Amino acid sequence: MRATLMYGAGDVRIETVPDPVLREPTDALVRVVRACVCGSDLHPYHTMPATTEGTPMGHEFVGVVEETGPEVTTVSRGDLVIAPFAWSDGTCEFCREGLQTSCLHGGFWGADGIGGGQAEAVRVPLADGTLVKAPVGEDSELLPGLLTLSDVYGTGYHAAKSAGVGPGDSVVVIGDGAVGLLAVLSARQLGAEQIILMGRHKDRTGLGVEFGATDVIAERGDEGIAKVRELTGGHGAAKVLEAVGHMPAYTQAVGVVRPGGVISRVGVPQYDDAPVGFTTLFGPNITLTGGPAPARAYIERLMPGVLDGTVQPGRVFDRTIGLEQVSDGYRAMDRRESLKVLIRP
Amino acid sequence: MRATLMYGAGDVRIETVPDPVLREPTDALVRVVRACVCGSDLHPYHTMPATTEGTPMGHEFVGVVEETGPEVTTVSRGDLVIAPFAWSDGTCEFCREGLQTSCLHGGFWGADGIGGGQAEAVRVPLADGTLVKAPVGEDSELLPGLLTLSDVYGTGYHAAKSAGVGPGDSVVVIGDGAVGLLAVLSARQLGAEQIILMGRHKDRTGLGVEFGATDVIAERGDEGIAKVRELTGGHGAAKVLEAVGHMPAYTQAVGVVRPGGVISRVGVPQYDDAPVGFTTLFGPNITLTGGPAPARAYIERLMPGVLDGTVQPGRVFDRTIGLEQVSDGYRAMDRRESLKVLIRP
Repeated sequence: MRATLMYGAGDVRIETVPDPVLREPTDALVRVVRACVCGSDLHPYHTMPATTEGTPMGHEFVGVVEETGPEVTTVSRGDLVIAPFAWSDGTCEFCREGLQTSCLHGGFWGADGIGGGQAEAVRVPLADGTLVKAPVGEDSELLPGLLTLSDVYGTGYHAAKSAGVGPGDSVVVIGDGAVGLLAVLSARQLGAEQIILMGRHKDRTGLGVEFGATDVIAERGDEGIAKVRELTGGHGAAKVLEAVGHMPAYTQAVGVVRPGGVISRVGVPQYDDAPVGFTTLFGPNITLTGGPAPARAYIERLMPGVLDGTVQPGRVFDRTIGLEQVSDGYRAMDRRESLKVLIRP
Repeated sequence: MRATLMYGAGDVRIETVPDPVLREPTDALVRVVRACVCGSDLHPYHTMPATTEGTPMGHEFVGVVEETGPEVTTVSRGDLVIAPFAWSDGTCEFCREGLQTSCLHGGFWGADGIGGGQAEAVRVPLADGTLVKAPVGEDSELLPGLLTLSDVYGTGYHAAKSAGVGPGDSVVVIGDGAVGLLAVLSARQLGAEQIILMGRHKDRTGLGVEFGATDVIAERGDEGIAKVRELTGGHGAAKVLEAVGHMPAYTQAVGVVRPGGVISRVGVPQYDDAPVGFTTLFGPNITLTGGPAPARAYIERLMPGVLDGTVQPGRVFDRTIGLEQVSDGYRAMDRRESLKVLIRP
């Protein structure tokens, strides 16, 4: 089959690899119907050291079950299924608590002998814990929306949920990528009253406004902080959702959060250390929370709104390509010519 | 009057200074009946650059109101009052939310023309917001317990409260100073089932056990982490209360916290940057919270237990001195000859 491998920064190739086959009785074989490129795929696209082996790419996909191992009971051949960006057993103590990204027996796509989603097919381990069946066919117009449940919508929702966003809240979202925009949508779903989106790309922030942002701030640094304070009674917002992962976004978050407030990070941090001392987090009693979203935990909660059209998270996809164009897809996202690229293998 | 000033690291002096007088109509003049030395006083005791002016010391005191400004309505001459370690107006948006340490018009003792508590008397600004009357006389045996409401008990309680400690929880407390021990007591009050105290001083951890610790771990570093994991089913504790403020305590907290758990800091951080990246906080969805306790917010909640003897937080005091011995008091705490020093001016 054809699959995407990354060999180093900027070096994404589509290649022929062995077809995946069932190995464990808990496996399912899924033919990929839609996949996509993630903002987090751009991190290795910028920094990955050159290798000779290549790493399978893609951690977001929906597909059709082709075959299941004898122990799989919740999905069957022909089902359209959503795969969250981490696979998990669904039964360990962390899965039961809804933290499937810390599953004791789980893992991530494209590692440990498991392929990536930017491919024609994937062997899905622990299929009962991992996959969620969606009641649509593979020609459904809802596939892009359902695909966001693999990662970006769940991740935006995790940002808002971890921050404790609720009715009447004042929220700042940092970052106008797909996750930031879906953090806006999620904050709105959770009842936030004021949602200030910080981003500089007008086509993106425009979609953010349609998703529920009440204000858009293009300025960064001190100027951006001053604008947020103006809009929030002088002291910043109680909930700040950081959907970028670079240090300037962290600094921005610290600048716009209100004393006693929460910074919720879902952008994968591209730093190890950050300011957390008296003048930044400690003195004003700021809480720092977030992490990789347990997307699996949110699929059942968020799918109904996608199915009935209440929300249209699939609007984050602004370009569709085939697998052979995947390298172009990375380039388009890297150059910000595209917000998020949908792949039809 | 006599008051304590610090002139630099290790240089604490008792001196004669002008008697405080009422300046604002919202002031009260309080004669100090009991004060004490705080673990956080040891931070400048170790690091303060030498000065010629000196800084008034002490932020914990109970005393008797001697005089009030014309706008003070909630306390009167003769009342025994508790002063929290931050003064606050009690009416601003942060005070109304219970975050008096971020009061828009408040401040801290020993700064901006306000004296410290390690003195014979203090001018208390915004007395209505700041002071809480206690229904005892100045000869009460409960004074040490009530004095802990100024800071250490409220701070320990803040650690537990911010971490969301509740019935059945598994909690690790890092640090066997007065705050750590009162974090143990607070976690027990909030219903924690397992309370693991990490500390090396047997006399202190012994008191911790009396306050409710179920386990004591003297080991630090990897060995300490391994012991905590043994006691907590292999994955650490969901709630970790960090009551030290030095980097090794932070590292320890990261090591013993369970995925999805909370690290609640109340030890004043002696560092600016700390690890918060993928391998420490982000990947396992760890929440970092805490800060200076709004001790004022907790006084009414915690005082009844002190008055009726349900809890005896005053047991953290193991030495009593007069004001003239205050320099010895600092030295005794610094050398860990004393857990916490009570001052009778």
